[in-house]
Formats: sequence, C-alpha cells, structure tokens
Amino acid sequence: MKNTFGSSISVTIFGESHGEEIGVVIDGLSPGIPVDRDFIHAQLALRRPAGKISTARQEQDAYRIVSGVFEGRTTGTPLCICIPNTQTRSKDYAATRALARPGHADYTAHVKYRGFEDYRGGGHFSGRITAGLVAGGAIALTALREKGIVIGTHIARCGGVNDRAFGDLAADIAALQTMPFAVLDESAGISMRSCIEQAAAEGDSIGGVLETAVLGMPAGVGEPWFDTLESLLAHALFSIPGIKGVQFGAGFGGADLRGSAYNDPFRVQDGHIVTTTNRNGGINGGISNGMPILLRCAVKPTPSIYQAQKTVDILKQENADLQIAGRHDPAIIHRARVVVDSVTALTLCDALAGHFGTDYFTPEQ
Amino acid sequence: MKNTFGSSISVTIFGESHGEEIGVVIDGLSPGIPVDRDFIHAQLALRRPAGKISTARQEQDAYRIVSGVFEGRTTGTPLCICIPNTQTRSKDYAATRALARPGHADYTAHVKYRGFEDYRGGGHFSGRITAGLVAGGAIALTALREKGIVIGTHIARCGGVNDRAFGDLAADIAALQTMPFAVLDESAGISMRSCIEQAAAEGDSIGGVLETAVLGMPAGVGEPWFDTLESLLAHALFSIPGIKGVQFGAGFGGADLRGSAYNDPFRVQDGHIVTTTNRNGGINGGISNGMPILLRCAVKPTPSIYQAQKTVDILKQENADLQIAGRHDPAIIHRARVVVDSVTALTLCDALAGHFGTDYFTPEQ
Amino acid sequence: MKNTFGSSISVTIFGESHGEEIGVVIDGLSPGIPVDRDFIHAQLALRRPAGKISTARQEQDAYRIVSGVFEGRTTGTPLCICIPNTQTRSKDYAATRALARPGHADYTAHVKYRGFEDYRGGGHFSGRITAGLVAGGAIALTALREKGIVIGTHIARCGGVNDRAFGDLAADIAALQTMPFAVLDESAGISMRSCIEQAAAEGDSIGGVLETAVLGMPAGVGEPWFDTLESLLAHALFSIPGIKGVQFGAGFGGADLRGSAYNDPFRVQDGHIVTTTNRNGGINGGISNGMPILLRCAVKPTPSIYQAQKTVDILKQENADLQIAGRHDPAIIHRARVVVDSVTALTLCDALAGHFGTDYFTPEQ
Amino acid sequence: MKNTFGSSISVTIFGESHGEEIGVVIDGLSPGIPVDRDFIHAQLALRRPAGKISTARQEQDAYRIVSGVFEGRTTGTPLCICIPNTQTRSKDYAATRALARPGHADYTAHVKYRGFEDYRGGGHFSGRITAGLVAGGAIALTALREKGIVIGTHIARCGGVNDRAFGDLAADIAALQTMPFAVLDESAGISMRSCIEQAAAEGDSIGGVLETAVLGMPAGVGEPWFDTLESLLAHALFSIPGIKGVQFGAGFGGADLRGSAYNDPFRVQDGHIVTTTNRNGGINGGISNGMPILLRCAVKPTPSIYQAQKTVDILKQENADLQIAGRHDPAIIHRARVVVDSVTALTLCDALAGHFGTDYFTPEQ
Repeated sequence: MKNTFGSSISVTIFGESHGEEIGVVIDGLSPGIPVDRDFIHAQLALRRPAGKISTARQEQDAYRIVSGVFEGRTTGTPLCICIPNTQTRSKDYAATRALARPGHADYTAHVKYRGFEDYRGGGHFSGRITAGLVAGGAIALTALREKGIVIGTHIARCGGVNDRAFGDLAADIAALQTMPFAVLDESAGISMRSCIEQAAAEGDSIGGVLETAVLGMPAGVGEPWFDTLESLLAHALFSIPGIKGVQFGAGFGGADLRGSAYNDPFRVQDGHIVTTTNRNGGINGGISNGMPILLRCAVKPTPSIYQAQKTVDILKQENADLQIAGRHDPAIIHRARVVVDSVTALTLCDALAGHFGTDYFTPEQ
Repeated sequence: MKNTFGSSISVTIFGESHGEEIGVVIDGLSPGIPVDRDFIHAQLALRRPAGKISTARQEQDAYRIVSGVFEGRTTGTPLCICIPNTQTRSKDYAATRALARPGHADYTAHVKYRGFEDYRGGGHFSGRITAGLVAGGAIALTALREKGIVIGTHIARCGGVNDRAFGDLAADIAALQTMPFAVLDESAGISMRSCIEQAAAEGDSIGGVLETAVLGMPAGVGEPWFDTLESLLAHALFSIPGIKGVQFGAGFGGADLRGSAYNDPFRVQDGHIVTTTNRNGGINGGISNGMPILLRCAVKPTPSIYQAQKTVDILKQENADLQIAGRHDPAIIHRARVVVDSVTALTLCDALAGHFGTDYFTPEQ
Repeated sequence: MKNTFGSSISVTIFGESHGEEIGVVIDGLSPGIPVDRDFIHAQLALRRPAGKISTARQEQDAYRIVSGVFEGRTTGTPLCICIPNTQTRSKDYAATRALARPGHADYTAHVKYRGFEDYRGGGHFSGRITAGLVAGGAIALTALREKGIVIGTHIARCGGVNDRAFGDLAADIAALQTMPFAVLDESAGISMRSCIEQAAAEGDSIGGVLETAVLGMPAGVGEPWFDTLESLLAHALFSIPGIKGVQFGAGFGGADLRGSAYNDPFRVQDGHIVTTTNRNGGINGGISNGMPILLRCAVKPTPSIYQAQKTVDILKQENADLQIAGRHDPAIIHRARVVVDSVTALTLCDALAGHFGTDYFTPEQ
Repeated sequence: MKNTFGSSISVTIFGESHGEEIGVVIDGLSPGIPVDRDFIHAQLALRRPAGKISTARQEQDAYRIVSGVFEGRTTGTPLCICIPNTQTRSKDYAATRALARPGHADYTAHVKYRGFEDYRGGGHFSGRITAGLVAGGAIALTALREKGIVIGTHIARCGGVNDRAFGDLAADIAALQTMPFAVLDESAGISMRSCIEQAAAEGDSIGGVLETAVLGMPAGVGEPWFDTLESLLAHALFSIPGIKGVQFGAGFGGADLRGSAYNDPFRVQDGHIVTTTNRNGGINGGISNGMPILLRCAVKPTPSIYQAQKTVDILKQENADLQIAGRHDPAIIHRARVVVDSVTALTLCDALAGHFGTDYFTPEQ
C-alpha cells in the first residue's frame, strides 16, 4: 500500500503541490463521530505558514468534505476531503527543473517514476500534501477526545534550544492545542524563533525535535510482533517529510541506562495499575500499558535553502550549481507538530478500532 | 496483520518461549534463490547466547526447512522453517507467574489476551522468537548478496563506550559478518564487554545502540508516502523486542544542523549520481538514492535483572516485590545485531520485489 | 480494507448518491501511462442511463482528474478523479426513509452504521458510485491495451434470451467496445430490450448474465493459494452491486462434465503452448495459462420496482407496505457491463504489476 | 498476500504434496477459544480419502499444534499446526515430470516459478495442502459454534443427480456434520456414489456442486464496497483447488427472475426483522442481514484421470501423450465439502472479529 495506511481505519492521500486539488480519504471511521468544521479549520491554520519564519505561499485551505458526513456526523463510509490548490506559481520551478535539489526527492522521484513525475514544487512530495493528513487528523483527534484520549506535541528542541520537559500532562496538552509555535516554556520559544529568523536571514534553514504525549490511551492495544504500537506509529510518522528519527520513552538516551534505572516499576494506584516512571513511553512489548505514550521525532532542517549548492542536472547527468528560488520555509518544525498530532491520532484510532471493533468511536444512543 | 509483515515478500512468525516449536513462514520469495544451510546455521549461532555475557539457556536451533525448498533452491512458494524448543525449564516461571516483570510484556499481554496468554518465559514475547527471523533473514541476506547488496551492523555504543564510525563500508561490512561481538574497533569491544560483565556482576543489565549499513541498494526503491523505506524499515525494526528508537542518517543529531550543513550535495562520479555526504542515510523522500542506507537502533537494557524490583501481582491487583529467577542476558545488543541484519534484509527484499517484480531475485538461466 | 482494493495497484472509492462528489483514487499505476480523456468520457457514457430501459436521472459525469496526471500521462503517484453529483433530488427519499427497500442495503446499512448512514438514494450503496470505478477502469483498460491485453463483455443472457457465444474473440471484443447495449447477436439484443421494456411497463425489473473475455493475458500471473486470479477477480467483481454469482470457464455447467470432457489438452501451436479447448477459462491452479480468461457474472434483477412490496419500518421495527418512488432502472445489466470491464481491468493491472513490477506499464523511452 | 488471507484473523498456509510437512498458521484468533483436538481429528478424517471413490494415498494426518494453544485454549498469538507427509511416493511423478497434466497447475506453475517449482505430486498445488485449512478451520468452526453460528455443506449435485434442497436448516446442518458423504437425501447419495464409481471404473473423474448454509450469522457484518461478505467468501472459496464458480442465494438462476419474484420482503417476526424468502442468500449490499447465508460452489471434475491425454512436454516444448499413474481421486467433492466449511468458517471469523473486535470470540469470565 503506497499512499494508503491503516487496517481498520485507513487513510489514502492524493495530490501534488501544483495540481488541481490535494486531499485525503479516510475509510473505516466509526459511524456517528461528530465532525467539527471549525476545528478542522483551526488545525489547518496551525499547519499553514505564518509570519517571517515560514514560506510566503499562503493557501486558504478552503477544504470541502465531499463524502462520508451526513447531518454533521460520520456515516461510517469513506470520508473524502478535497483542498484546492490556488496559490501555485509553477514558473518558479521551470527554470531549475533539471537540477535536483539536495535533500529533496527530486532525484529519487526521477529515478523511481522514470521521468514522468510532476516536478513542480516537489509534486507529490511537497509538504503541502500534509494538509490532507491534518484535515483528516482533526476528525481522528475529535474521535479520540470523545473517548478521553488527548494528544499534544511541543517543540522539544530547535536551534540548540530545549523546551522544558512535560510536567502536568493534562494541562500541558491543553495549553499546546492552539499555539502557533508550540512550546511549554515561552522564553524557550522566543529563543527558538530567533534562531529560525537568524537562519532565514542567512538563507539557511533549521530543524529540531518534536515531543508528543498521548494521555488516556487504554492498556492492551497493539498487535505484536509486527503491528506493535511502536511499529505502527513509527511507520506513519516516518511518512511525514523531514522526519529522520523516531523514539519512544527514553529512546536513544535510554540506551545508556542500566536496566535497574530504566525499568518502570508497576504499582497499584487508586485501583489502577500504573508505572511510577515512564521510560518505556507507555508501551511494553509493543502494547499500551495505560501510561501516557511518549515519543519524539527528529525533524531535519528544511532542504530548500537560498545558499548556492552543488548538485547535478538529472537530465544531462552532469554536475551543476543550484540557486533555489521560490517560496520556502526556513523551518517547518512549528508547522510539522500539528501533522505529528494528526498522524498519531489517525494511527491510534486505527489500532483502537482494530482491537475493540469498528464501532468503538460510535456514541451510545 | 499481527504476526505477518511485508507485501510482496511476507514473513509470518509463530511460537512461544516454552512451546513445542517456534518458526517462520516466508512467502513470495523469488524462485531459484540458493538456500545455504550452513549460512543459516552460522547466523543462528550468532544469535545464540554465548559466554558469560549471555543467558545460560542454550538451544541448539536444530532448524528444519519443512517447505518451499526443492533441490537446494527456493521454489517461490511458502518457505517454512521450524525450530524445536528443547531447553525449556518452565518451572522457573511458575512461582512468579502473577508478578509482572517491569519492562516486560507480562502485564500488557495479560490485559490484551485477557488472561489466556502463555506466560511461561514471556511466551510469544520472548526474544527466542527472533530465531525464526534470523533463519528466514539468512535466506533474504543470500538473495540480496546475489544482487550485490550487503548489510552489516555493529555495536556503535554500549555502556557509554563508542565504537569507531564506519569507514570503508565494503571492508567493514565484510569484517562484521562473523563476529560474535560485532565492533569495528576491537579495543572498544573489549571495553563494552567489560561493561556488560560489570553489570552482570551487579545483577544488572545494559543496552546500547546498533548501527547498520546497507551497501549496493539501487536507487528508486521505496513507496511514498506511507511505504517509504524509512517507514517500512522502522516498522519492521520496532518489532524487535527492546528497540525503542530508530533513526536514519544523521537522525536526532541532524536535527541540530542547519540545512547548509545537512543537505547532501549531488555529484556525478564515474558516470553515476552520488552524494558527497550521506546525512540523509541513503534515502530522499522515502526512496533510496543509491548511496548506502545508514540507520541506528536504540536497544534498551534487558528488562530481566536480578535485583529486587517493585511490581504488582496482576491476578490479585496488589503491590508486590519481585526477585527474578531463570536464565537471562545481562545484554542482548550483541545478539540483537544479527536480528537487525535479518529484519533489514527481509524488509529490503520485500521493497525490491514489490518494485521490480516477484522474480527479481531469480537467477538468469 | 473496506473501500480500497488491490496490492500493487490499489483503488479507493468514495461518495454517496446524493453527496457532493463521488470519486476514486488509483494508486500504484506505473508512470507514463497515457490518459485518454475522451476514452474516459466514452466509458462513463456507456455506464450512464439511456433511453426508456434506464432511470431518468441523468448525470453529465463532468469528471475532474485532480491529481496524478502530468502532461497527459500518469505520474506514478495517486490519481484521483472526482465526479460531482448534480441531479440529486433527495426529497424523493425523505418520505420513505424508514422503509427498508427489499433487496437493497437499506436495512443492513442501518444495522451496520447504527443509524448514522446517509440514506438518501442508497447513500454509499448506490450504483452511482460505480462511475468512479469506470473512470478509473478506463485508465486501466488503456494500460492493458498498450500491453496487448483487451477485455470485452457482452450480455450473455437477459430475460431468458441468450446472446450467441463468443466466436472470433479479437473481433468480438473490438465490436463490443462502444455498444450501448452490448450483444454479439443483434437480434438477441432486440429481444432482450423488449423484455426489459415489458418489465418496465409492468413496474418490474429484470436481471441477466454477463460474459467477459480477456485476450492477451500472459501466462504465469496469479498468486496461489489465496491470491489466485479467480480469487482476485471474484473478490473485485462481487463488489459490484447486484452481482450474485461469478464463474470461470465452464463454471457451474462444468460441474456436470467428466474429467475427460472437461480437461483442456495442451498443444504446441506456432511455437506457443496453448490449450485446444478452454473450459478452465484461461486459469489453471489460479494462474493464467495464456489462453483467454473467460468469466461470467450473474446480475440479479434491479431491486427498485414500482410494485407494492411488503417490508418493515426500521425505525419503528414494525411491518409496513412500500411503494417506491424516485427514478430507477428496470435493468442495469447493459450499464453494468462497462463496470465489469473496468473492475476486471483494474484487477488484472494489479496482478500484472504485482508480478512483473510497478513499472510494467511504463512505456520504453 | 499470496498464501496469507484475512485481516483481523489471518491464515497462512505452507507445504507441498511431497515435502516434509504441510501446515497452517492462524493469527489473530481471540484468546480463550477452546481447542478441541478430537474435533480437529474428526474434521481431518472427513477430508481424508476413503474407500473406492477416493485416492489410495492414506495419510494419518498426525497433526501437531506447535504454538498458540495453552492449557487447552487459544492464547491469541499465532496458532501453528504442522502435519507431516509420510505417504509420499515421489517416484510416481519422476517419469512424467515434464508432461503437463491437463487441468492441473503443472504448466502454469512452471511458467510462474521459472522451472524451480517442486513438481512432485503437484507440489504446493496439491489438494493435500487443504488439510491445513481443515485443521485450522476446525478451530474457527468451534469459535463460531460458541457464538451460535453453525455451518453445513452438502453435495447438492453430482453426476447429474440432485440432493434435496435444504429444509429445516438447524436439523440439516446438524445431520451433515459427521457424514463422510454429505447429502440430505440418502438415496441421492447412493446414486451419486454410483456415478463416481462408474467414472472411476472408466478411468475418468467427476465434479459437482456444493451448497453451504450458515445459520446464526448476526446482521450488519461485511465491509462494502470491496470487503463485502460475498467478496471475502468468494475470494477464500476460489482458493480451494477445483472450485470454478461461486454464487450466493439464487445466484445464476436468480438472473432469470424478475425483481418482483426475486426481492426478499422484510417482516417483523418474534421481535426480529427477517425476510420471508432468501433469494439474496442472507446478504444485502454485501452485509449480512441476519438470515442464513446460502452459497454454492461449482467443483470441476478432478483433472487426474487414467485415460490417455494430449499434452505437451514443457521442457522440450513439444507435443506429447500422457498416461497418468499415481494415486488419484475420481471425485473430490465429498472431500471438498469439509474444506468449504473450513474456509467459510475462517472467513466469517475474520469478518466478525474485524467488525466486533479481536476479543469477539473470547468467553466471558
């Protein structure tokens, strides 16, 4: 499955940066999930570029839900959302068509698609396509919220600056929801933005690390060996352009700990089994243990930079120099976080519906 | 798909630590791949525990190929390998059956499988099951080698000690193949083993980081957005018990770089398009670019330790103290590396056969 | 996968009878397939109702290809086709909303979707959705034709009248392509149409049998045991509303033959291996044998009839009488045949690309 | 997925006629299903050849459950059953290796597997492999029975002789369970057996039609458009060797009816919604309607006959004459019926678990 992901609830994406429309089909959603159009708008707004730390391209994301919703709720049949592309300036790309942009998919798409790829603005490989994931993810986030499961992502690190660690998860997640630049510590956010602006001023770009927490996930979900929660989440998250690392709980840092320091002791608390630490990130043996799911994604610096770069002309197969024009982001990490929330939500909805049945998110009547 | 992974070439695993047999079914293999029984034995030996840095349980892994091979070659129909369990000492587990071992799947499996799980020795969650992946992976590794694709993994970090970085990849990969403790720098290996022994002496355990290189992967393979090479590899790798992080190329470290330092410039070299650096780990936009694939896996410290631990009795739902008995590894990282090689090989075979067709690995006649 | 079908090439459908748009996403198509917009229009026209043997609802099927095509050819990334619904007269359905129409999905959808289904005009269960399959199938048919594979379907039986059997397949298939009422024997067609008109005059409906031939399919395609060509084709064909039987070659009639009369003898002819009869319908052991694939579909009579019917009120759970209003077809068999061609084409494209690789349909350059 | 079928509950088969072992892995079974070893034996016995209307090859089917069962119940993890081949007489096949048996997969497998196929006794294409389906199906049948769902199949037609139609389904299904030659009308059975013996005496073979009823299936199960119950069942049933047609309810015969005669009127009966006829075979719009599921399978005559046949030598690519030796069945229809029951059961278990959740079959505790 190339552009479809998920088993019980599946997501299919389509579209190119400069095509007519991009969109998403979500299939298998439980019937009866409320579809909050304002929330979808708000989520798309979080993904849209804003201010001087983002690209000048401004799409209004005037999405249309063309199927799967009736009287304000999901029907249980495929929900398709289409988002028109309107701000396409394809001529920006014509001049440099043959020059593979380093770090982009230009060269690999050219090999894979044998020269038939739509190269304008990265074509199908454009971050623009994530708008469909965000629109669909908004519905998944609503479905989860109705079951008491909430998700929040902050910029844990950017430009060498660390945000503070998660504290009171419920409060932190609530606070993050509507922030255009999602950090827990405002002053860290100011420093990060200043790093991004500095990089932009130098025609450069910057990456970072996103940290996500999921609160309220019931224990017992995940399908070892191959569809562990970690496998499913990583599979989906690595689909997001620019993500080059995914870790759960203590992750790479935990590899330096001893078992006695890493193991999360179980305890009974208020009648529930909990762990008193959470270095496993809420997942044991690939199955949720009822504790918050904690994960981190490494986001590479945006490959489009305004500095001169060495590359090749893929049509002539010869060396060339590249000076990128067009409209680009000096950083995408603040925009990527709503994509991570969305992809995480879609993946968990699938895992929950697979385990508990396709009606899991249907309200009682 | 719970215990089946892959599309064109799929792997199905079965078995429990103390069941009659464990095994693997590999389906979709190209017909005509030579099946080297000695190589399978050698790979299984690399996975088996050895010496004082491993568990005392010794299985001979007397595997049987019960289908799918005819006259020494794959037939193209399902290849099933069965490996009997012989060294089972289930009584080790009976006493502590109800006490969820921290860091293990005992509690989550109990919730998920509603109390019907085979709890002996971790049941289906035992690392023992990876023997099937290694046996099957050996055939995948052979298939890849016949196409000029080789894979090698070393212990990049263990006990706070770093191995040297990959240098001449072809030579390094060749050297790693048969090492019981796979490091590029022998002295680093001695330090690491000493750390493991120290942890073992203290009834504790240790984790580490594995680094894998794949040489010879053709450009143009991977199926964005959802079946990118990163997505597929991460999905499969996170199935291996104890892996809590996966990154490609510069990974989490790359998140601190600027685009100008991160982007890999393309150049024409000897008539081929290459990149002069490889921070993207051989993958652009989820598709192989012809450069070596580089990835790292974080391996958590083995959860079974001999120190007293706090936990719960999952049957009585009350707090308890746990003192683990049985035979356990103070570290699995040296054993895990052949599992990583195997899983990587199986995943890449699937991606290649999906792209180039099911006969990709069939020899010309 | 609920509304997605296929592995290497997959089809995802969405939409409802009275929703905003219906459509299809086809993913995994080889790059470089020519997209013939006139042919898509012509195929959609064959599916559209026409004359007094069809419903009075007339959609212009002003489809838009919103992604996946660049400079007149497939790009290899998802191709999405949207078709607006314009002729929706939902008030036809409001009055009888609660009365489950016998033979329709009203009741079963109500149970499955827990009352949240879009009931207008059958919602997602409307034959209208097949327009997406036909639009997508047109591209699959073009791809196959470029490889020398052609498909034709005729109305083998309708109203008790038999069409003549297939003769010269190449000529017969060519002749069928553009017929609005596809029969090989014109006089049989006249009789069939007269039966349909008679049924319509009596407020009744009629079914029939479609027979399909595929010429040019290479030998060796199909993935036993579970993805045999028969399994894949039947799976896809049974998705078409109203199809209640699928058989290959001699089918149910062959069950009365003895082996000596049924077996197809192999012979060498012009340097190729052929069979001198074709009672197996071009498929042995689930794999194509290079002979024409022959299959038949039983199409049940259209469930919407204008006669009074006994039914239940699904909201009140009590008996009721039903008099259907709205616009309906007295027969769909003449419209269904292009759907069968389309679904057959999509399925075979998937099987071919799965076996020979994703570039199978890419033209040499 | 080549040899794996199913989503929530999946079945993977392996083995060859003359290999070491054949078997099946069933994954995703709810935990806690009782595993009745005697019933598995009994079902395997029904599949085994018996008397003069079957092959002389007698396998004892000494199956071993090597994983997935603990203390007499399923664990929820993969259940693997291995069945050794003991009665292999491979020399029967060596002499005629190159001669493609008409109606068999010899030629198509040779093309597909490029000459590397295990040709002994049909290799992976042997009906022998269905023993794995029957063993696994026995567990599925038990799981269904615990939920009040029962399945029965009779030989509806053989040698031109019709069995009586289903009457009291509960009684008929109960009566069929243990019959070696499953007919509802004993005298019809005697006539059918005499036809088979007559064919055998003439070195010929015979086919027939199986009819299956499923009683107790809840309404609302099935995933249109592509995973309708009809699609899933047909997909699975067409995997059984020799099945060349599948129909539901009135099937091909229904294609001659008018809508007014075909539609099944809904009525409320004892507080439940039922239909007063069942021409749709218990399925509307691809979703179960709570009525019995009724389907028929056309079984072609066994291709192995003892009469001289025309064929080709696939190695020399030249015409040849074939005289089959070995041990073969003059009919398989009486043996196939337990395979049809098994495959139907596995498919319905998958559909039920996909809809209601993976614990659907877990007993309350």
